[in-house]
Amino acid sequence: MKLKHVPHHISHQFDRELEDIRSKVFHMGGLVEQQLINAIQALELGNAKLAERVLGGDFKVNALEVNIDEECTRILVRRQPAAIDLRLVLAVGKTITDLERIGDESEKIGRFVLHLMESEGPKAYYVGVVAMGKHVRTMLHASLDAFARMDPEAALEVAKEDHKVDDEYDAIMRQLITYMMEDPRSITRVLDVVWIVRALERIGDHADNICENVIYLVKGKDVRHIGLQAMEKEVRAERGGFGGEIA
Amino acid sequence: MKLKHVPHHISHQFDRELEDIRSKVFHMGGLVEQQLINAIQALELGNAKLAERVLGGDFKVNALEVNIDEECTRILVRRQPAAIDLRLVLAVGKTITDLERIGDESEKIGRFVLHLMESEGPKAYYVGVVAMGKHVRTMLHASLDAFARMDPEAALEVAKEDHKVDDEYDAIMRQLITYMMEDPRSITRVLDVVWIVRALERIGDHADNICENVIYLVKGKDVRHIGLQAMEKEVRAERGGFGGEIA
Repeated sequence: MKLKHVPHHISHQFDRELEDIRSKVFHMGGLVEQQLINAIQALELGNAKLAERVLGGDFKVNALEVNIDEECTRILVRRQPAAIDLRLVLAVGKTITDLERIGDESEKIGRFVLHLMESEGPKAYYVGVVAMGKHVRTMLHASLDAFARMDPEAALEVAKEDHKVDDEYDAIMRQLITYMMEDPRSITRVLDVVWIVRALERIGDHADNICENVIYLVKGKDVRHIGLQAMEKEVRAERGGFGGEIA
Repeated sequence: MKLKHVPHHISHQFDRELEDIRSKVFHMGGLVEQQLINAIQALELGNAKLAERVLGGDFKVNALEVNIDEECTRILVRRQPAAIDLRLVLAVGKTITDLERIGDESEKIGRFVLHLMESEGPKAYYVGVVAMGKHVRTMLHASLDAFARMDPEAALEVAKEDHKVDDEYDAIMRQLITYMMEDPRSITRVLDVVWIVRALERIGDHADNICENVIYLVKGKDVRHIGLQAMEKEVRAERGGFGGEIA
C-alpha cells in the first residue's frame, strides 16, 4: 500500500528503514491490543489461564519498545532525517512509549482479574466494566489504524471518543461506590474492580495520545493540551502534510 | 558549572542551544516540584487557596513541555547531533514527558484536596499520605538533581528509593481499606485519599523514569525493564560516558 503521506527517497535503503520501524510499531500495537483483549476476556469469562497469559506476555512488549527505540536512534544518527521523516521517527518514539504503558495497564488488569478469581463474589460488579473494556479496545484499534493509514481525520474521531470513555468511567465508579456502601465486606473485592476501571481509563488516554502523534506526524503541529475544538481546527487546516517543515 | 559529561563544541552557538534546553528542563522541573509541594501542603494544612494555585499552574508546565519539545526538534534538524549530544536531546524529550505527567498527577492531587475540603472529616486518613508525599517529593528533587549533574550513581539511588515508596503505598492502602470497612459512610471521602495516594505512587514511577533517562544519557545504555540489579551493573560498568557511541 502506498501512503499519500509517506515520501519516497532516492535511497531505497532509507525507505526500507522507515517502513521497518513503521511495521514494527504495528507489530507492537497488535501485541498490545491482544494483551488488552485477553485481559478483558479473562475478566468476562473468569478465565485464569487467559489472565496468566497476559502477565506472561508483557516482556515481549517491553523488548519491542527498547528495540524500536534503538532503531529510531540509529536512523537519527545515520540518516539525519528532516521534515516528515523526522516527524515519523519522533512520533514513533512517542507512540511506543504509549503502547508500552498500555501493555503495563493490561498487565495490571490481568493481575487484578486473577486476584478477583481467588474468591467467590457477584459478577454484577463488572458488567459495565467489560463493556467499557470493549469500548477502549475499539478506541485503541482505531488509533493504531489511524497511525497505520496516517489519517489525522480518523485520529480526531478517536480523540472525541475518549470523552465518552471518561463518562463511562464516572458512571461505573459511582456504581462501584454504591456497591461498597451497601456491603462493606465487598470493599476489597470492589476495589480490585476499581483498579481495573482505572487502568481502562488510562488506556483510553494513551490511545488519545497516539492520535495526537498521528496529527503531529501528518500536520506538523503539536496538538497536545489544546482541547478538542482547537485540535479539530488544526486537522482541517491545509498547512502541513507533505511539505510541512518542522524547523 | 562545567559538567564532566557535557562536551564542548567548536560551535559555541550549539553549546548554548544544548545548555538552553538543559536549563529549560530544570526550570520545568522546578515548576513541577513546586506544584507537588503546593499540592502536599494543601492537603496537610487543608489550604484551599494553595490547592487552587496548583490547578491554575498546570498550563505553564504544559506550555514548557511543548516549547522544549519544539526546541529539541529544531536541534535535531539543524545540528544533526550524534553520540552524547543526541542522547541529551532524546533524554530531554523523554524527561519532559515524565515531568508533564507529574504535573498532571499533582493537579489531580490538588483537585482531590479541594473535594476533601468540601466536607468535614477526620484528618487521620491522611497522616501517612503527607509523609509519603514528602518522600516522593524528595525522590523527584533527587532525580532532577541527578539529571542536572548527569550523575548515574545518584540516579541509581533514586531508583532504589522507588521500591520504598511502593511499600509505603501498600501499607497506606491497607489502612485506608480498614477505614472504609469500619465506617462505610466514609467511603467517598476515603476514596479521594486513595486517588491521592495513587497519584503519589505514579509520581514516584515518573521520577524513576527520569533516573533511567539519566543513566541512558551518560552510559548510553537503555536500562528500562531490566530490574534494579542489572541497572546497578550498567551504572558501574566502564563503557559509555563521553566516548559512548549510540549507533
